[in-house]
Amino acid sequence: MQIGSIEAGGTKFVCAIGDEDYRIKDQTQFPTTTPEETLQKTLDYFAKFDIDALGIASFGPIEIRQSSPKYGYVTNTPKPGWKNTDFVGTLKQKIRVPMFWTTDVNGSAYGEYVMSTLANEKIDSLVYYTIGTGVGAGAVIDGEFLGNAGHPEMGHTFLKRHPQDLDFPGICPFHKDCLEGLVSGPTLEARLGIKGPEVPRDHPVWDIMAYYLAQAAIQATLIIRPDKIVFGGGVVDEALLEKVRVQFDQLLNHYIDLPPLKNYITMPQVANNGSATLGDFALGIKALKD
Amino acid sequence: MQIGSIEAGGTKFVCAIGDEDYRIKDQTQFPTTTPEETLQKTLDYFAKFDIDALGIASFGPIEIRQSSPKYGYVTNTPKPGWKNTDFVGTLKQKIRVPMFWTTDVNGSAYGEYVMSTLANEKIDSLVYYTIGTGVGAGAVIDGEFLGNAGHPEMGHTFLKRHPQDLDFPGICPFHKDCLEGLVSGPTLEARLGIKGPEVPRDHPVWDIMAYYLAQAAIQATLIIRPDKIVFGGGVVDEALLEKVRVQFDQLLNHYIDLPPLKNYITMPQVANNGSATLGDFALGIKALKD
Repeated sequence: MQIGSIEAGGTKFVCAIGDEDYRIKDQTQFPTTTPEETLQKTLDYFAKFDIDALGIASFGPIEIRQSSPKYGYVTNTPKPGWKNTDFVGTLKQKIRVPMFWTTDVNGSAYGEYVMSTLANEKIDSLVYYTIGTGVGAGAVIDGEFLGNAGHPEMGHTFLKRHPQDLDFPGICPFHKDCLEGLVSGPTLEARLGIKGPEVPRDHPVWDIMAYYLAQAAIQATLIIRPDKIVFGGGVVDEALLEKVRVQFDQLLNHYIDLPPLKNYITMPQVANNGSATLGDFALGIKALKD
Repeated sequence: MQIGSIEAGGTKFVCAIGDEDYRIKDQTQFPTTTPEETLQKTLDYFAKFDIDALGIASFGPIEIRQSSPKYGYVTNTPKPGWKNTDFVGTLKQKIRVPMFWTTDVNGSAYGEYVMSTLANEKIDSLVYYTIGTGVGAGAVIDGEFLGNAGHPEMGHTFLKRHPQDLDFPGICPFHKDCLEGLVSGPTLEARLGIKGPEVPRDHPVWDIMAYYLAQAAIQATLIIRPDKIVFGGGVVDEALLEKVRVQFDQLLNHYIDLPPLKNYITMPQVANNGSATLGDFALGIKALKD
């Protein structure tokens, strides 16, 4: 069996070919330019292979409700040129195999879910947050994505403000101080005037970030009751997650029984979002079976 | 077919017999006293009927993980005498039919879900919050309860504090100013020194309550993406929900497409928690089929 994977990011596309054991047999990447050029390069790549199914995890917002006439579209994205692009329709003109179309973060969530399953972690459910330019999230329960639209937007809930951060208005264009408006990468520069990667690891802002991420983890915990919460994205490292675990523990105050926090709140198992390709393979296989 | 229902509340038990069309054929109620007396009265009632299955929705906390040795127990409840009571085990000694055991709020959530389905509302998923002495919640997706433990605790997430309520510390014994600590019935007396039912409907505290309930609805919306959110419990009336809809609309700022808020954020379809009995019947039938 040969399965295709497209990780369609706002900066670059990663296309790959894998087998039913999720082994990568071929892989390429190219920058995300215009939709015409980028999707043509994608078609050119897959024309070289005989695939049985295709998993696609795309930047967004995208339409994933199959009942919608805009199913398969990148919708009102701020990315120049991509608004209202019929991504799946363009591919289907040339590639006639079952396709699974979902968000980039859902692809990563599914990859982490599959990896945990392969590692015999006895995981039935998993929540994945990505903390980068924005904040996205995906949730998998028993192999299915959570939510009517299969597309939670849990990066935009509101949180209790940190006492040392009350003057920061937040930067979400929709909600000001929602989770994304308080912890996405650009909030660091908005607060401190220096770029995120240049903020010293001992700066007190990381305690503020951890306070908010801990509350996000509490929301996911109390609402979804998942087996595991994974934080990925450029803002996250193990030092930050250790602060998140401490704050989570204090705020939740042992209200419910949970696994050891070291296993419950974790980094992705594969660095640099590498689990997304594996997730795409698994979703491609799922599309074939459904 | 005859299905039994037990609504086991902290104040009273309501037992009923229904058929496969959820029609109530017989019903009784008695006060919740000691576990021995109350469960004996329950057994005495059901001894008069030949039932095929039983749905039980109980006050808690309760253990509903079937893998737990304490499955079927009321666990560490503050209610005198009831801590560590083997509720289901006691019933099973006399009643040998399939039983569905869940929380009181899950019973209500399921009842509202079934009623919406019967009314052809095309509801696949529903979140039910009860705002009373405490704050509980249940979520049903495609006929199943959400969460690994089938038992979300979404009454205890944290929220952005209302600017006119910053001095109120909150009353949750675990988390101080979580949702329950800010909007449960006793918070009214804690804030104002007068009992909830005596607080005038034009008092500004209702705007504060609505601000928090709107954030709870936003969490449920963005994390679960349900088709409908129902608010029940003694604190809630239509005037309060109308304030909740206004705040919800302002806070969410049209970030995602939703049904008209009048249909999306609603009171229970049956007053005084009446949908719980119907939910129990449906869950009893589910236990029979599973």
